[in-house]
Amino acid sequence: MTARQAYDALLAHSRASADIIAALSLLGWDQQVMLPAQAHAGRANQIGALTAILHRRACDPAMGQWLADCEGSELTADPATPEAANIRELRRDYDQAVKIPEALAVALAQAASTGQRAWELARKDNDFQAFAPHLQTLLDLSREKAQALGYQTEAYDALLDLYEPGEKAAAIAPVLAELRDAAVDILGRIKDAPAPADLPDGPYDTAAQETLLRQVTALIGLSPTASRLDVSAHPFSTLIGPGDARITTRFDPADFTKAFFGAVHETGHALYSLGHVGNGHYGTPMGEPASFAVHESQSRLWENQVARSLPFWRHVTPMAAACFPQLAGTSPEAMVKAVGAVRPGLIRVDADETTYNLHIILRFELELALVRGDLAVADLPGAWNEKSQAILGLTPPTDALGCLQDVHWSTGAFGYFPTYSLGNIYAACLFEAAGRAIPDLPERMAAGDFAPLLQWLHTNIHAKGRQLPPRALIAAATGQQPTAAPLVRHLRAKASAIYGV
Amino acid sequence: MTARQAYDALLAHSRASADIIAALSLLGWDQQVMLPAQAHAGRANQIGALTAILHRRACDPAMGQWLADCEGSELTADPATPEAANIRELRRDYDQAVKIPEALAVALAQAASTGQRAWELARKDNDFQAFAPHLQTLLDLSREKAQALGYQTEAYDALLDLYEPGEKAAAIAPVLAELRDAAVDILGRIKDAPAPADLPDGPYDTAAQETLLRQVTALIGLSPTASRLDVSAHPFSTLIGPGDARITTRFDPADFTKAFFGAVHETGHALYSLGHVGNGHYGTPMGEPASFAVHESQSRLWENQVARSLPFWRHVTPMAAACFPQLAGTSPEAMVKAVGAVRPGLIRVDADETTYNLHIILRFELELALVRGDLAVADLPGAWNEKSQAILGLTPPTDALGCLQDVHWSTGAFGYFPTYSLGNIYAACLFEAAGRAIPDLPERMAAGDFAPLLQWLHTNIHAKGRQLPPRALIAAATGQQPTAAPLVRHLRAKASAIYGV
Repeated sequence: MTARQAYDALLAHSRASADIIAALSLLGWDQQVMLPAQAHAGRANQIGALTAILHRRACDPAMGQWLADCEGSELTADPATPEAANIRELRRDYDQAVKIPEALAVALAQAASTGQRAWELARKDNDFQAFAPHLQTLLDLSREKAQALGYQTEAYDALLDLYEPGEKAAAIAPVLAELRDAAVDILGRIKDAPAPADLPDGPYDTAAQETLLRQVTALIGLSPTASRLDVSAHPFSTLIGPGDARITTRFDPADFTKAFFGAVHETGHALYSLGHVGNGHYGTPMGEPASFAVHESQSRLWENQVARSLPFWRHVTPMAAACFPQLAGTSPEAMVKAVGAVRPGLIRVDADETTYNLHIILRFELELALVRGDLAVADLPGAWNEKSQAILGLTPPTDALGCLQDVHWSTGAFGYFPTYSLGNIYAACLFEAAGRAIPDLPERMAAGDFAPLLQWLHTNIHAKGRQLPPRALIAAATGQQPTAAPLVRHLRAKASAIYGV
Repeated sequence: MTARQAYDALLAHSRASADIIAALSLLGWDQQVMLPAQAHAGRANQIGALTAILHRRACDPAMGQWLADCEGSELTADPATPEAANIRELRRDYDQAVKIPEALAVALAQAASTGQRAWELARKDNDFQAFAPHLQTLLDLSREKAQALGYQTEAYDALLDLYEPGEKAAAIAPVLAELRDAAVDILGRIKDAPAPADLPDGPYDTAAQETLLRQVTALIGLSPTASRLDVSAHPFSTLIGPGDARITTRFDPADFTKAFFGAVHETGHALYSLGHVGNGHYGTPMGEPASFAVHESQSRLWENQVARSLPFWRHVTPMAAACFPQLAGTSPEAMVKAVGAVRPGLIRVDADETTYNLHIILRFELELALVRGDLAVADLPGAWNEKSQAILGLTPPTDALGCLQDVHWSTGAFGYFPTYSLGNIYAACLFEAAGRAIPDLPERMAAGDFAPLLQWLHTNIHAKGRQLPPRALIAAATGQQPTAAPLVRHLRAKASAIYGV
């Protein structure tokens, strides 16, 4: 078989897998948005059946042969070509897949499924002890997985690498420390400044909220003919396939900003998904997202850099006032202040931009200790509360508001949390670079013209797929190695604008 | 491998295939109900990928080995056991699957996909010539399929057997002739009788229509926690998986009865699906529908025998009047007359109970001639119009209202149409038998209590799955071989009640 034939076979295999992944994504979306109550057990079986097929396809020995036939051929001579990138990334995926024994993969999938249900009940009942054995199982299996995958010095790195290729705990820790120092400094400065005024009281009509969301998501570039907006208990974004990026939201009549920023966040994910899928490489690594942090950078950029900015609200405040009569007297400046207030709290998903990263530090340090074996599962609640007091200045009154608040560990997603802060960092790097490339960006945004920004992101991030590893992708887009400095500048500027410090 | 081990392997294989079929069903439902406009090409690929996997599973040589290990063992000693039925039916499915070469299966799937699109355009443009080459391809491939499947005397039988196991054209023809004679007789009798009064004019509020549909579908037994009701351009019913039977409708503000009877019809399908899936044999033939005609018998029974009857409207007329103010003065008797009027028309899906079967005769005779090679594709429009005049007394003014009106042939479904009339016949047989088994059935229905009827159908039809071939299933349920007589009695009684003839 020639290298070209092997490459064609590789891509056909990858594209067929992508079509199965699309079916799996639809099963998952439907489960959260549409599924009748009696159908959940059946749905779990359906997801299991397709997952098993995908796992076998990912480990198919034919893949190994095709990859060997491609590697070292003329197709990999220029690493910048789509062919070379696809071969490199398919090799990465294949090597990871074959390292995980099928029994371990199945055990992890089952533990994640039962673990998630156990976590839901434990959080509801504030009963960490009921969840602890599941967490122990998931931790044990994840450590086994890290051993199977292999690592240099730190087992945690093997897990982190699954979400963020090339990333290491030793590189994450100092970056998170920088974000902590900045947050502590900002919190110290604003301590005695008057808090910005809240938005007018609700209720905010939910039909009007939906109208505004549809207007704003379309305004920033999400085509209604390539997406859906639906309601689910937990908002999320999912790509089903080409031309089909779906987001969900949840309406709170007392506070329209929850659904609003949530939907803008998910729109950022959806715009990225449509962007890399639409680059002509769907079903191959060149048409896939670069990493979890890069994905998060797109949602955070639109949510924070754009939708919490003054230019954005110059255009959107009249739209919002047309939907909600009580906003008639609210200025864009007042809007920006209200949605930018810094208030340390117990719940990560409700956190402001500045203190959000403190939540990530807390989780990163704890999961690192768990994976290392330095922290026993039984000691997690105490360790969480101690660290929460030290980092956030708050001790959770219950585990439900503490170590049981997040879903991630209940599905075995150890090593996932750092991608949130990396995403925040990348978002700030990209928005600064976009501002250099589009000198009149604030004026464009104030005029409701978000196309130049979306086009810049499309060209420099979306269309690139997995052509470059995450850090290299950000460096190529911005012209410099990514650091926390742009995010820190952004947070300081915001504190200055809102609190005058 | 012991027979029991082989049987367990067979069933595990069948159950995993059922989970993939469920995913395919969801892809299909979503395509008609939810899919963003830009996503149709991607969806076709996803359906293609899962179809290819299913086809390979259906022909898996391991199936042949397991079946051989089971057949003739103690598992098949008593043909009435679920094991024997499953083995017999899995053998039937396997033998059919392996007879179709993969190239032919792929060619048919592609021709069906392009044919359906070509038909949609041709119907819109009233352009039979544009559709003719597609029809020719589908006919050629279907005849090739019939050859591959094999038959005794009539190629058509090989295709018919895919929908209705054991059925033959030679057995269908006299039954359809009996229905034609009855219809001609009824039409002659009512010719000079005054037509029943129409229902009051619309508009019928579509939100109120939806309210009524949800009330009535729940009333007759469709649980909202095991089903969904959504809107689609073409109403349909689909089983996604256990506890998940979905129906769709389309609202016409001028005439609430279209959505109403359509939804009751689809509810009949859904009740059957939930019934056979819920019998503990999901994913194996014992948990599958017996045939297309048996499926249709369930929709027709609820649509015609139940929902066009006086006892039904004694209970439902006040519910309808609560939704639509203009029905305040309409009696149950007037309602039954209005929805039971006999009016020959050009369009099958709008036909009344009596003339519906005339449409089926028309199509059966034409598709039989096409498959035999006695009728050329180019001559179809002329043959259709001639036969329409002879059978219905009407000549279509356009092909869009004539030979282009149905979707079936555009997807290669030759041999499907007779199942509609068989379904009508089986529905009447079953309703008569249920009436014998439940002496106070009319009183129960008039009191809004449809549980005894549903329970009788569940016990005698739904829960049986594919335990018996279709005719044997109806015979076992009713205590006599199915004939057209009960349907003819039903139609005559209705004509008598409405027209006094």
